[in-house]
Amino acid sequence: MTRYKLTIEYDGTPYVGWQRQDNGRSVQGEIEAAVAAFCGQPINVYGAGRTDSGVHALGQVAHFDIPRDTGADTVRDALNHYLRKAPITILDADRVDEDFHARFSAVGRHYLYRILNRRPPPALDRDKVWWHPKKVDAEAMHAAAQVLVGDHDFTSFRATSCQSKSPVKTLDRLDVVRNGAEIRVTAAARSFLHHQVRNMVGTLMWVGSGKWGPADVQASLEARDRAAAGPTAPPEGLYLVQVDYP
Amino acid sequence: MTRYKLTIEYDGTPYVGWQRQDNGRSVQGEIEAAVAAFCGQPINVYGAGRTDSGVHALGQVAHFDIPRDTGADTVRDALNHYLRKAPITILDADRVDEDFHARFSAVGRHYLYRILNRRPPPALDRDKVWWHPKKVDAEAMHAAAQVLVGDHDFTSFRATSCQSKSPVKTLDRLDVVRNGAEIRVTAAARSFLHHQVRNMVGTLMWVGSGKWGPADVQASLEARDRAAAGPTAPPEGLYLVQVDYP
Repeated sequence: MTRYKLTIEYDGTPYVGWQRQDNGRSVQGEIEAAVAAFCGQPINVYGAGRTDSGVHALGQVAHFDIPRDTGADTVRDALNHYLRKAPITILDADRVDEDFHARFSAVGRHYLYRILNRRPPPALDRDKVWWHPKKVDAEAMHAAAQVLVGDHDFTSFRATSCQSKSPVKTLDRLDVVRNGAEIRVTAAARSFLHHQVRNMVGTLMWVGSGKWGPADVQASLEARDRAAAGPTAPPEGLYLVQVDYP
Repeated sequence: MTRYKLTIEYDGTPYVGWQRQDNGRSVQGEIEAAVAAFCGQPINVYGAGRTDSGVHALGQVAHFDIPRDTGADTVRDALNHYLRKAPITILDADRVDEDFHARFSAVGRHYLYRILNRRPPPALDRDKVWWHPKKVDAEAMHAAAQVLVGDHDFTSFRATSCQSKSPVKTLDRLDVVRNGAEIRVTAAARSFLHHQVRNMVGTLMWVGSGKWGPADVQASLEARDRAAAGPTAPPEGLYLVQVDYP
């Protein structure tokens, strides 16, 4: 068996999410269908992270094993051929050792959250940004975001359905930068809880709109209660940008 | 009557183009329907330039007259309300003098052409870039582009269907810049012939792929014959960025 690592870009809009589910098309399911078409047999594909419905990726990572070594570029091009009707593209395919695991070998994950902060709605970036028509203060959001950086119990920013054993995570970076009408939130950590980025962004928008200050973010973190933090930002602004391996 | 100038962003993918036509939905038709819904009567909307089917706009300009002065922000917000299901958004509405004409008052037009130059196809920018999988030399394209800058008879770069009286135009700027996998061509002139930007881009791609040098571009310009220049680049990479007024 030969193990391949895939780096994947996708538009999450038409999918139920990364993970294969009974209720609709998934990114994993599309890629597994392409791999099956290429190999002539069903093969499981394992992703680094489960993006939700509507969440995009610029650099999701996955791995799978195939019975023969056909060359990495051939794998990439063949999968892109079978995926040509889907908004999914294989950016890279690389041969990796059999102890590589897209999820368990990952040592860092990078997310981007895009907010379009202008009164007119998006035309070209529909379903690619969170449209927020009222002006918000990105500098205040950045300052408050620093409260969340570091080792914390992120229970307040964790989906109630989250299956992670521990709510304690180390957030390495959470930056908020405005560029014209667009606000970009970038987050980096070894791993994240379910909905953590979207819940942090939703909370920071309360700061940006003047409803909350940094002390409120601090208090919501210390409360260790999902109800103490802000709402979940919508999926369409979120991008899985990169997954790091040793 | 009160005249309003609109600045408009749109995704040209689902449309037959800017101009109202019998064979499908047009951007002009969608905006006229929104204006009619707002005013309660049919009203013509005049655009600065007729973008082709699949061509996008970041800053198309149009004007129209309505019987009452309702305030520019109200016009913008009302039209965006009626356009909410269309990938068209009114960025700005401004009251202008009655001698303002979106097309005839314009003194400058700016276009952007986006090329995705990588082997994997676009997933997130489908229908928003020209995908060109073979590596091209953007610096060579930029150098050759300078042959086209200035006052010239652009017959070789004009659609055979072009209705402009004269093929002589002044091209103020034609720049080609690579940023990672994306090549951006920016063009500025008082006005352009039909298909001029797409025909120049298609020709420059022959230079980028090594088929042609600057002397060939020069010869094709001097031939004053459409058949002497390169092919028409596809519409999905083209954006009308800005229209200038005195």
